[in-house]
Amino acid sequence: MQDSWTTSVAQHGPRRDALETALRSAIRDGRLAPGSRLPSTRALALDLGIARGTVVEAYAQLRAEGYLGARRGAGTWVADLGLSIAPSVPRARPAAPSPRFDFHPGQPDLSAFPRAAWAAALRRGLRAAADSTLGYGDPRGRPELREELALYLTRARGAVADPERVVLCCGFRHGLSLVGRALRTERATRMAIEEPCAPPHRAAAAASGLRLVPLAVDERGARTDLLGELRADAVVLGPAHQYPLGVVLQPDRRAAAVEWARATGGVIVEDDYDAELRYDRQPVGALQALAPEHVAYGGTASKTLVPGLRLGWLLLPPRLLEPVLALREVEDVHVPATDQIAFTELLRSGAYERHVRRMRTRYRARRVRLVRMLAERVPAVTPEGAAAGLRVLLDLPGSGPTARELCELASERSLALYEVAGRNAVLVGYGALPEYDAEAGLRALTDLLATVYAS
Amino acid sequence: MQDSWTTSVAQHGPRRDALETALRSAIRDGRLAPGSRLPSTRALALDLGIARGTVVEAYAQLRAEGYLGARRGAGTWVADLGLSIAPSVPRARPAAPSPRFDFHPGQPDLSAFPRAAWAAALRRGLRAAADSTLGYGDPRGRPELREELALYLTRARGAVADPERVVLCCGFRHGLSLVGRALRTERATRMAIEEPCAPPHRAAAAASGLRLVPLAVDERGARTDLLGELRADAVVLGPAHQYPLGVVLQPDRRAAAVEWARATGGVIVEDDYDAELRYDRQPVGALQALAPEHVAYGGTASKTLVPGLRLGWLLLPPRLLEPVLALREVEDVHVPATDQIAFTELLRSGAYERHVRRMRTRYRARRVRLVRMLAERVPAVTPEGAAAGLRVLLDLPGSGPTARELCELASERSLALYEVAGRNAVLVGYGALPEYDAEAGLRALTDLLATVYAS
Repeated sequence: MQDSWTTSVAQHGPRRDALETALRSAIRDGRLAPGSRLPSTRALALDLGIARGTVVEAYAQLRAEGYLGARRGAGTWVADLGLSIAPSVPRARPAAPSPRFDFHPGQPDLSAFPRAAWAAALRRGLRAAADSTLGYGDPRGRPELREELALYLTRARGAVADPERVVLCCGFRHGLSLVGRALRTERATRMAIEEPCAPPHRAAAAASGLRLVPLAVDERGARTDLLGELRADAVVLGPAHQYPLGVVLQPDRRAAAVEWARATGGVIVEDDYDAELRYDRQPVGALQALAPEHVAYGGTASKTLVPGLRLGWLLLPPRLLEPVLALREVEDVHVPATDQIAFTELLRSGAYERHVRRMRTRYRARRVRLVRMLAERVPAVTPEGAAAGLRVLLDLPGSGPTARELCELASERSLALYEVAGRNAVLVGYGALPEYDAEAGLRALTDLLATVYAS
Repeated sequence: MQDSWTTSVAQHGPRRDALETALRSAIRDGRLAPGSRLPSTRALALDLGIARGTVVEAYAQLRAEGYLGARRGAGTWVADLGLSIAPSVPRARPAAPSPRFDFHPGQPDLSAFPRAAWAAALRRGLRAAADSTLGYGDPRGRPELREELALYLTRARGAVADPERVVLCCGFRHGLSLVGRALRTERATRMAIEEPCAPPHRAAAAASGLRLVPLAVDERGARTDLLGELRADAVVLGPAHQYPLGVVLQPDRRAAAVEWARATGGVIVEDDYDAELRYDRQPVGALQALAPEHVAYGGTASKTLVPGLRLGWLLLPPRLLEPVLALREVEDVHVPATDQIAFTELLRSGAYERHVRRMRTRYRARRVRLVRMLAERVPAVTPEGAAAGLRVLLDLPGSGPTARELCELASERSLALYEVAGRNAVLVGYGALPEYDAEAGLRALTDLLATVYAS
């Protein structure tokens, strides 16, 4: 038995580290059984041809760690760790092969992330940053970044943005969770949420402890005219581009939401996730500007840059600021200094807005192309929603396959499409394709649809 | 009234953006009162000397945003936004001037962050990373990083580390919160926690909904021999270097903790926050290795690199893996792809461990220097705790000022020291000083103590 681990020591070279490592793993593997006596330090040192002091130190280390027991006069033995051989966690199922074209409705073109610019911004920003930037900082985020974001939100989204009210977070869903939990501590109990909406948003809102009340959405946006009847303390709205339906909240509906908030003291959580991406006109300004005291505004870089950054921001009404910050102190979840530094640089230099403009042009071209191809080749399928964002909703004719069946047919051709709950429609995320493959992807999609809906 | 905003338009130049911006802010500021009629598009275009189409578009935009109302034949008027002038959030109180020497007990030397190496690692890693790395990814973290971390934890901490069980998080406190909430979903109700401990840890554990039970700590570490009496479902331990007392959990206490976990099915949350920094001997290996099925191990880069990274990791027993991942799906809080990419590179290249070794040498020198200066000049004050980490605990003689009084005296000399709850002692974080100022800081501290305790 001794052989097996002394051999291993010899292989690793006669050093204390190697001896300890070999002993630990021999004990854990059961090659050295609990209770077995170890050779004396002198004998082992002779066997291995190493200094006795090395063995003494190794034994002492393993005693401190609990692998060995020892008593003067009784020598050194293997402690009973009571280890059963640990069954490994079942490996994740082998992932299904990625589809050739994934039309994920919530994902931007990952290949377009400005990698070199981001790395350069970080290098430049880190060189100039004060040491204190790297410590535990303001739970809202770095002042420099909040300043830049406030300017950006004023400029690009028409928001009433005070840097003191900006709070960095890890994306819209995290922001929604923070606001939901803050509302709970302020005794709110009911939150209205658009139906349909993004299921993870519903889960995040529900996890904050609020009772969710569905709010219908029609072609003019959420039915904010019905808010008064719902007795909700808050409502989640996507005014600029509702997910998944793609409708824009119309002026009277915007007014109704604001009136409701003002009359009842209710809070509007504005999901402004992709408002920068509007193709047929200038983006509609943020609802927040109409009622800064009542709107908790949330934005994100997940669509304009990439979701992997986990970078988002809230612009909060004063009464929610303290409760949100109290939660952040406890959960201790913040945006890393590194990404804050890089993003500050990109905002300050204008590179972020240039990137957004470039992507807008690119996504617009894809959308126009898709809509045109559909009109020519698959007139039975109707694109719905505003000319905006990363996706289009396609209403399917009743005569053909169901949305689920269509997704399965697509999957056979290695295309991933996405169903819409409660409607015979699919979401096509043209934004998710890498630019070099966009045309091929749109062709593959229209080929499929043309085959399915050939009349 | 019209003048004031048309002037502003002229200043911004006769473009549609400028017109919209001027209108929005005039309406918000109350310069254009609710109900006031706007000039016709034709009249305004003539006044401003711009194309009528521009005015039409601007009015349409502001109607869409809810600032204006319009009806065919009735013209265009300012909508009633019901805005009261929003009181701004009270600015944060002006921060107290930073102390000349801040001996923060939990902070490393921020000036030592390897900025250039980090930025270079990000650039290199980003260049090679697959696009999918930048999307929504595995909620545990990138496989490459979990692989490197598992190797590191095996090598440096003697842990039994399977990459499948590694979960990235935003620091130890976030990890503790995740484990606490996961335990709640598994019907755990009581968690033992060392007393004293870091107050934010207590807050995070309590916020997870567990009832906290204090566990005493003596000079041999936490009283794990008493765990059986506490009827706890879990216990938080800092075996390698207890915070704030600095004691190391002794072999029999390690054994008692493991026996308790095995006998009761209890979970040990191992806080391994600074174990890499041991100065008098090799670090004691992780407790996790003795009972991988019962220990939720947590580590962090907050002490070895900087807290601003918000980078930590859990190594979980199989039964906690699914519940923790379910929580992460909902809260949607993850470590950004960027930091994961850079950290993977630093681990892979060995640069991380070289950095840790460099910092260990540096902090050891500071500690040795401080202890020697105290022995020579202030023998009345007793340094306590293992030769490890970023801080030392100083027990104060009963005859002099209290710990609070000493902190105030220090503050007068622009030194920040930190009290220990329930003990006449202060924490001195020698690690927090920037290297160029470390000697001066230690001198200023011993000067103060020598004056106070001159006999």
